Amino acid sequence: MIYTQLGTDKYVLRLESGDDILQSLRQFATAKRLSGSLLEGIGSLSKVKLGHYDFKTKQYRYETFEDDLEVLNLSGNIASMNRQPLAHVHVTLGRRDFSVIGGHLDEGSAANMVEIGLWKLPGKLLKAKDEAVGLNLLQLARRI
Amino acid sequence: MIYTQLGTDKYVLRLESGDDILQSLRQFATAKRLSGSLLEGIGSLSKVKLGHYDFKTKQYRYETFEDDLEVLNLSGNIASMNRQPLAHVHVTLGRRDFSVIGGHLDEGSAANMVEIGLWKLPGKLLKAKDEAVGLNLLQLARRI
Amino acid sequence: MIYTQLGTDKYVLRLESGDDILQSLRQFATAKRLSGSLLEGIGSLSKVKLGHYDFKTKQYRYETFEDDLEVLNLSGNIASMNRQPLAHVHVTLGRRDFSVIGGHLDEGSAANMVEIGLWKLPGKLLKAKDEAVGLNLLQLARRI
Repeated sequence: MIYTQLGTDKYVLRLESGDDILQSLRQFATAKRLSGSLLEGIGSLSKVKLGHYDFKTKQYRYETFEDDLEVLNLSGNIASMNRQPLAHVHVTLGRRDFSVIGGHLDEGSAANMVEIGLWKLPGKLLKAKDEAVGLNLLQLARRI
Repeated sequence: MIYTQLGTDKYVLRLESGDDILQSLRQFATAKRLSGSLLEGIGSLSKVKLGHYDFKTKQYRYETFEDDLEVLNLSGNIASMNRQPLAHVHVTLGRRDFSVIGGHLDEGSAANMVEIGLWKLPGKLLKAKDEAVGLNLLQLARRI
Repeated sequence: MIYTQLGTDKYVLRLESGDDILQSLRQFATAKRLSGSLLEGIGSLSKVKLGHYDFKTKQYRYETFEDDLEVLNLSGNIASMNRQPLAHVHVTLGRRDFSVIGGHLDEGSAANMVEIGLWKLPGKLLKAKDEAVGLNLLQLARRI
């Protein structure tokens, strides 16, 4: 993974062949002490582990796909949970025939080449496990 | 809906189970007097009303889907029309089998849990109905 | 194409019927001397030339689709190569039946109406041809 910082609050990253996408983001967040970030990216990957969450059974279903898939969009955020960075990322992926698959991105997903823009937020995003929902949820102070 | 403000111009929102996505955004924009914003999000929803616009007939075709669908990407903006906030949002959604559907997001779409990053713009985005196109279009001052 | 500037580093663009998407972005980048930008958009297009890159053969496969397709998401960046702006954009597109296609966006793609938010970065993004990968890649100074 290579990167550059632009101004005080923006980074551009390029993941290289074989880089695990989630591990790279966590590694970057640790190195830069990021405790709250938004991110958007495009590129291509060679292997992806996708998840789909069922809110009734509170279970993820996973499936792994191995092929050159265009990363049409990679969106998400980096929060902090138990003082560790936690990246939450979803991906939309384009196949050779231009059909599309996608889901929640899990570890075990390898980049061919992914370009990511990252906005460092001036403050912390905290997550905690929500037992009712079964997921790690953003803890945000205000309600409307 | 819960939220936090980060710095002068960024918000992170979390929509909760059953929150209508467009209504929540309009409610938020009204409360915060937002007259121009960009937004990006991911998450999951339980019901969605999708639209597709035909530029020849100038008609939307709508269809409603009810299932736990991963929000692979939610993109759009909030402008102002007739002094009311107007959110324009498109969604890309992942099914249990990792196939993907998507369209223009209409009211009647309910979140399971959606995380949204919102950039408040330093200025107004104004929309007005364009009779030739049949849509509410951004009125922007300069042309190239 | 019409546009407005908001603050020092953000633009909102609206592409009009028939505007070539990549050409418009390049034209905008040239006019505004943009040498590093991130962008996100939604809208609709009438014609699209999509590409899929095979990392083994180092070849793009292209296909053109002509229909009113919702632009569910348009993501990418503008860098600089050989002193010329270079836009790298991927699109996710929704059909009338709400199925989805997508890929790398090539020239020859015509907007019906596309709304784009663009962040001008405080610094340059440089690209160069990488012979091993076969693509124009971001040259970023630091490595983790």
